[in-house]
Amino acid sequence: MYDNTRPEVGSEARTLSARHYTAPDYFQQELEKIHYQMWLHAGRVEQLPKVGSYFLIELGMESVIVLRSEDQGLRAFYNVCRHRGTQLCQHASGTLPGKIQCPYHAWTYTFDGRLINAPLMDKTRGFDLRDHSLQPIAIDTWDGHIFINFAPDPSPLLEHLADLPAKFRSWKMEHLRQAAEIVYSIEANWKLVIQNYSECLHCPLLHPQLQQLSHYMSGENDPPRPTYLGGRMDLRDGVETLSQDGISPWATLPGLREYERRGVYYYAILPNLLLNLHPQYMLTFTLWPKACDRTDIVCRWSFHPNELAREGFDPSNAVDFWDLTNRQDWEVSELAQRGISSRAYRPGLYSNREELLSALDRFVVERCGAAD
Amino acid sequence: MYDNTRPEVGSEARTLSARHYTAPDYFQQELEKIHYQMWLHAGRVEQLPKVGSYFLIELGMESVIVLRSEDQGLRAFYNVCRHRGTQLCQHASGTLPGKIQCPYHAWTYTFDGRLINAPLMDKTRGFDLRDHSLQPIAIDTWDGHIFINFAPDPSPLLEHLADLPAKFRSWKMEHLRQAAEIVYSIEANWKLVIQNYSECLHCPLLHPQLQQLSHYMSGENDPPRPTYLGGRMDLRDGVETLSQDGISPWATLPGLREYERRGVYYYAILPNLLLNLHPQYMLTFTLWPKACDRTDIVCRWSFHPNELAREGFDPSNAVDFWDLTNRQDWEVSELAQRGISSRAYRPGLYSNREELLSALDRFVVERCGAAD
Amino acid sequence: MYDNTRPEVGSEARTLSARHYTAPDYFQQELEKIHYQMWLHAGRVEQLPKVGSYFLIELGMESVIVLRSEDQGLRAFYNVCRHRGTQLCQHASGTLPGKIQCPYHAWTYTFDGRLINAPLMDKTRGFDLRDHSLQPIAIDTWDGHIFINFAPDPSPLLEHLADLPAKFRSWKMEHLRQAAEIVYSIEANWKLVIQNYSECLHCPLLHPQLQQLSHYMSGENDPPRPTYLGGRMDLRDGVETLSQDGISPWATLPGLREYERRGVYYYAILPNLLLNLHPQYMLTFTLWPKACDRTDIVCRWSFHPNELAREGFDPSNAVDFWDLTNRQDWEVSELAQRGISSRAYRPGLYSNREELLSALDRFVVERCGAAD
Repeated sequence: MYDNTRPEVGSEARTLSARHYTAPDYFQQELEKIHYQMWLHAGRVEQLPKVGSYFLIELGMESVIVLRSEDQGLRAFYNVCRHRGTQLCQHASGTLPGKIQCPYHAWTYTFDGRLINAPLMDKTRGFDLRDHSLQPIAIDTWDGHIFINFAPDPSPLLEHLADLPAKFRSWKMEHLRQAAEIVYSIEANWKLVIQNYSECLHCPLLHPQLQQLSHYMSGENDPPRPTYLGGRMDLRDGVETLSQDGISPWATLPGLREYERRGVYYYAILPNLLLNLHPQYMLTFTLWPKACDRTDIVCRWSFHPNELAREGFDPSNAVDFWDLTNRQDWEVSELAQRGISSRAYRPGLYSNREELLSALDRFVVERCGAAD
Repeated sequence: MYDNTRPEVGSEARTLSARHYTAPDYFQQELEKIHYQMWLHAGRVEQLPKVGSYFLIELGMESVIVLRSEDQGLRAFYNVCRHRGTQLCQHASGTLPGKIQCPYHAWTYTFDGRLINAPLMDKTRGFDLRDHSLQPIAIDTWDGHIFINFAPDPSPLLEHLADLPAKFRSWKMEHLRQAAEIVYSIEANWKLVIQNYSECLHCPLLHPQLQQLSHYMSGENDPPRPTYLGGRMDLRDGVETLSQDGISPWATLPGLREYERRGVYYYAILPNLLLNLHPQYMLTFTLWPKACDRTDIVCRWSFHPNELAREGFDPSNAVDFWDLTNRQDWEVSELAQRGISSRAYRPGLYSNREELLSALDRFVVERCGAAD
Repeated sequence: MYDNTRPEVGSEARTLSARHYTAPDYFQQELEKIHYQMWLHAGRVEQLPKVGSYFLIELGMESVIVLRSEDQGLRAFYNVCRHRGTQLCQHASGTLPGKIQCPYHAWTYTFDGRLINAPLMDKTRGFDLRDHSLQPIAIDTWDGHIFINFAPDPSPLLEHLADLPAKFRSWKMEHLRQAAEIVYSIEANWKLVIQNYSECLHCPLLHPQLQQLSHYMSGENDPPRPTYLGGRMDLRDGVETLSQDGISPWATLPGLREYERRGVYYYAILPNLLLNLHPQYMLTFTLWPKACDRTDIVCRWSFHPNELAREGFDPSNAVDFWDLTNRQDWEVSELAQRGISSRAYRPGLYSNREELLSALDRFVVERCGAAD
C-alpha cells in the first residue's frame, strides 16, 4: 500500500557523536548559540488575560517575567532586581498589583520596566532612577502563541516562522483554548525529543495504537527548512482523529480545508516548539532543556471554545491517547540517551525516512560546531 | 521622625559580581583564605559540661572533635585516626569514656591527643607512638562562646574580638544558658546571610512585625572593623523586647546599663557568628557554608539561668518571633542567590544604609581577590 | 595462644594519599586502567538457566547484556543498538524471545550479535547488515562463576585465576546454588572494601561475634599475587561454621579435605570479587564501583543443592550473621572514606598484619600511577 518512494540517502549521513548528547560543556554551548539566540515558545496569550497577569519562564540560570502591560501589550523582563539582584517574582504565575515591587527593599518598577521608586537611594551620589530599568527581553506573538527571544536585537518572529503562518492559517490557533496540560520531566537530551518527533519509523513497534489510526508510511515531509522541520501524516479511512478510539467527540475546526481534515501536521519549530495540529484540536510540546541529559516538556491540548463550552465536554479521549504515546516516546528517548553514553556507541547510519533528523544534526553543528 | 543622616556614599560602592556568589572555585577559595584562617564560632561552653563531653564541627571536608579534657580545659582535634584515616567519632555529640578509641583497629588517644595504644604495630620498623598524635586545632573561649581556628599558629582570639569583650561585658554571656535551638539549611551563599543581617532597610517591607517593635531607621552602626561589623537599633517606646507581642515575660539581664536595656545589638563577628543581644536574652546564628549556594545556620536562644529555673518558663515568645523573621530573611536571601545567578545581574549601587555590606565585600575581596 | 610471627615490615609501606580515594579523575583512571582491562565477576551461571535468559551488568556509563545463546554458550554484548544507540534491554534480567530486538526501530540481532533485520534501510547507499553487529565483550566461566572482560583481546581467564581453580576445586562451586542475595550501596571507595576484607586486625573490636567463632590471629595469608590476595582463618574448636551461633544446620560440602573443613577462606580476586568459602557454603561479594566515594556490593550466599532441597532449609543462620558483620564493615569503611577526605589525613604506617593492603596499593599504583 505504501512504498518507500523517498529518495536514497548516502552513508555520509550519520547520527552525531556521543559528546553532542552527553557533554555538559556542549550543552552550555547549545544554550548560548541556539536557545539564547532564537525565538522560543513561551506559552499562550490566554495565559495573560488581564493587565498584571504574568508567568515565569525558566531556562538555564535565567528566570523571565512574561506579563501583560497597562497598554494591553505583552512584555518580558529578566526576573532580577537592579539593586542587589533579587528575583522579583517567585511564583510560577499570578497577577501583579499595578507594579513590580522587589520583596527585599521595595524597589518598584512599572509594567514597562521603568524604576519608579528606590527607597533611601537619595544619598548615593550619581544615582538616577532612569539608569536602573528592568532588562527587557524581546517578545512577540503568532496566532495566540507567545515567543520570547533572549538576543539583544533579534530578527523578527515572522522571519523565523517563514511560511508557517500562511500554512496554518486555517486552524485560527488564536481562537483555541487550553483544555489540558501535562508537564513531563525526562532524562534525555532535548535533541532526542525533536528527533523522536521527526520520524514515524518507530511507530509500528512503539505505538501500535497510533499505527492503527494513521499509517506510519503515509503523508510526506516538507524539505528541511532553516528554522523548522515538519510534515504531515494521513488519518486512515474511517478514522476521525487521533484519540483512544479514533472517534472524535468534537466538531472539526471551522475553516479547515478538506485535505486538512484528513491529516495530522507534525512541525518542530526550532528550537523548542513541537506543533501538532489535528482536525479538531491543537497539541503543543514546549521543550525546556535542563541539562545535557534532562528536558522538561510542557504538553498542552487546546480546543475550539465552542467545544469547551459544550455541556459534558471531555478532552480525555485525546489526552489519554497522547499521554500514553508520549510516555512510550519518552521512555525510548531515555534509552537512547543511556545507550549513546556508552563507549560502544558509534554514529549510525540514517534511513531515508530520517532526513529531518539529519537536518537537525546539521542545524546544531552549524551553530555550535562539531563536538570532538 | 528619623532622618537619613548618615553620610553620602559614592557610586563606586557596588555589589560584587556574580561569580563571588556562584562559582564553586571562588567558594573553595573563601574556605581556604577565610574560614580555615580565622577564628570560627563553634558553640557554647555549656555544651561540654564534663570531662569527655564532645561535639563535632563539620566544615567543608573537615570534621573536628571539640571536647573537654581531664584538666577541664577544652581541646579540638581533627576527627581523623593516624593509622588509616578513619573518623574517630561519628555522632554529632556525646561523651567519650576516658579516651578516644578508633572504632576500626582500636588505636587509642588521650584527651590531649597522645596515642597510647596501637595494637600489633610492634613489628613495624620505626613505629613510635609519639609520632602519631591527633592533629590539634586551636581553641579558645570568650564569655561562654567556643571558637576554633584551623590555622596552624593563629593570632589570639582576643585580638580578633578587638573591643567587643569590653562592649558586651554587661551581658555576662558566660552565665546564659540555651533554651532553644533551630538549625536552618538554606540555598544561599553565606555572604548573603551576613549582608541580610547587616542592614534593616529591608525591614519595613519584609518584617512588618519587627518594624512595629523597632524602627528600621533607629540606632546607629559602628564604623566597619576588620573582624566585625555591627550596630544597634532602638526598641520603640513601650516595647520591652523583640518578641511576638513586644512584651517580655523575662526579667532584664542583671548588670545592663540603661541604654543597653532600650536597644538590640546586631553584630557580625566575621566570618561565621551573628551575635544578637537583647535586654533579656541572647540570640546567636552560627553560619556553616556548605557550598557557594548553600549555608547551614545554627540558631540558639539563651536566657539567664534564673529565668530557665522559673516555673513555667517559656522561650516561645522570642523563638516564634525570630523563627518567623528568620524564615522571611532566608527566603529573600534565596531569591537574591537565584537572581544573582542570572546573566542579567549587574553589580548594583548601595545606599548609604548599606555601608556594612560594602565593608563585607571589601573584606572578602581583600582576602580572596576579585572574581572575574 | 597466637603470636604475631609474621615478618617485620618497613616504614616505607604507608597508606595511599587521599586523592587515590577522593579524586573523581583518579577514579575514572581506575575504571579505564583496571576495571575495563581485567576480568570482572559478573554473576553465576545459574542466573542464565535457558536459551535467551539474560541479565544486565552496569559499570560506569556501560551497560552489558549477558545472555545464554542458542548453542547454550554464554555471550556478552554492549547494550547499544547500532542504529541510533538505543539501549536494547532495560530490565535488570529476563528472557529474550529468540532474538534481541531494539524497542525503538526494530533492528533485530541474533543471540550471537548478528544484525538480521533493519527495517527501511534499503534506501541507504552502502548499508550492509554485516557491518552492524552488536559489539561483543569477552566472557568466560570458572566453576559456575561468570566473568566478563571489556578489553578487546584479553588474556585468558585461567591465566588471571592462576592457581585458584586447583586450590578451590574441592568446593565444586559449579554445583552450588544461591539461597540469598543482598545488595548494599555504600559511601566508600571500592579499595576500602577490599582492604577491609583483607585484614582481621579490626575483628576483635568491630566483630565480637566473629571473633568468638574464629580468632583474628589464626590462619595465614598467601603471599600477595598479581591478580588476587587472600588467606585462610581457622574456626575455633567446637565451632562448626560462621553463623549466628557457630552451629551449622547444613552438612559439610562433599569432597572437602579435613583442613578445608576447619577453616574459612577469604580471597579477593582483583578487582571485583571477594570469594569467601566456608565448609558448608559459599559467600561472594561482587563490587561495582559507582564513584570515588560510592560502591555497590552484591552479596550472595550459595549452598549445596541437597541442602536447598531439604525440607525446612533455612539459610538465615549464615545470612543474618554476615549481614550484621557486613554492616559493621560498611559503616567503618564509610568512616574511613570520610576521614581520608580531610586535609588532616596523612598516609599512615601499616602493621605486619596488613601486608595484603599494601599489596593492593601497589597493584593500583602500578596500573594507574600515583596520585599527586
